[in-house]
Amino acid sequence: MASALKLHGSPISTSTMRALVGLHEKGLDFEFSPVDMSTGAHKKQPYLSLNPFGQVPALEDGSLRIFESRAITAHVAHSYTDKGNQLNLPGKERAALLVWQEVEAHQFDPIASKLLWELFYKPMFGLEADPVAVKENEDKLAKVLDVYEARLGQSKYLAGDHYTLADMHHLPALSLLSGTQVKKLFDARPRVAAWAALILARPAWAKVQALRNAPPH
Amino acid sequence: MASALKLHGSPISTSTMRALVGLHEKGLDFEFSPVDMSTGAHKKQPYLSLNPFGQVPALEDGSLRIFESRAITAHVAHSYTDKGNQLNLPGKERAALLVWQEVEAHQFDPIASKLLWELFYKPMFGLEADPVAVKENEDKLAKVLDVYEARLGQSKYLAGDHYTLADMHHLPALSLLSGTQVKKLFDARPRVAAWAALILARPAWAKVQALRNAPPH
Repeated sequence: MASALKLHGSPISTSTMRALVGLHEKGLDFEFSPVDMSTGAHKKQPYLSLNPFGQVPALEDGSLRIFESRAITAHVAHSYTDKGNQLNLPGKERAALLVWQEVEAHQFDPIASKLLWELFYKPMFGLEADPVAVKENEDKLAKVLDVYEARLGQSKYLAGDHYTLADMHHLPALSLLSGTQVKKLFDARPRVAAWAALILARPAWAKVQALRNAPPH
Repeated sequence: MASALKLHGSPISTSTMRALVGLHEKGLDFEFSPVDMSTGAHKKQPYLSLNPFGQVPALEDGSLRIFESRAITAHVAHSYTDKGNQLNLPGKERAALLVWQEVEAHQFDPIASKLLWELFYKPMFGLEADPVAVKENEDKLAKVLDVYEARLGQSKYLAGDHYTLADMHHLPALSLLSGTQVKKLFDARPRVAAWAALILARPAWAKVQALRNAPPH
């Protein structure tokens, strides 16, 4: 019998990894349905009925169809409060969670994605990185991480003293960039380095890594 | 006596407009504090203590300091449920709201912002638009709006039958682009055109327009 929760995606997509880590943090039982992006399956039916923008991932939760990775994580964090780890913050702390979720999406991710393209995906496809784009985005990321370093002097995690969606959403890019020359930018900032080590060590993230490293089937 | 709510920003910034329309939808009494971006006030103290990334807007709500426009709107929508218009959806409809808020932020806004830069801000600064960038982003926006057209055949607003944050977040770019050649892309899609007309006609948006058109003081 099919699980009520089914995630469609690709293990090498950072957005898929973001949704996966959310499902694992909540300890949810789900089926993973690989989408073969090499044949453009995400740009055709039946996948387009799950996400009309033709991007991975997409989640089926009973009759609900949810796409955009951060909508998926917010949905499971809100809908399955009695399961797994709490990823939201109540009351007054909620404002900080809202702020730092937006910071990840609008300050960190656009720059991190450009660096990932240059330093992770291009080499994977046999292309050469553009050193000008790398330098420009490393400089931008350094400035963002300076703000993180100051913030992490005030609280253990970005939104407060508990791990939340705001931290979790960083994991895919943070993990992949830690395998590139960008790691030096994290290491140069002691609080950022400690925070990165803390969130990369979470068991839910290890489960995502295991799927990525599994042989294709 | 100062109001408990104080929004810092610039009336020509789309992010400031997004926060402003949220405050007006909630019928909140607030003080608007203009930030003089022409002198770089947003990149200096004391503004950096409100938003360490040096961007407008920022909201003071009592002792809370909230930045990122969508965090501000989500905060006021959640914290002032007893005032003004409801901008969230309860229960099962909440998933659709999460999805369409992310669609605005990650599918619509990056493209709309590039078109605004070419067709609104560049002319304001006496610069010429790059026709290649305009064409490329108009083509991308057309594809996004095709998805909107299909979606708006299923529900009156993006997330369901009620106006929410997901619609509201589009207003600044939608309004400014409606004054450019991009209007043809909205007009060519009957449901998108009807939706745009409906949300642009909201009294809260008229209040934001009035501030933008007010003489500088």
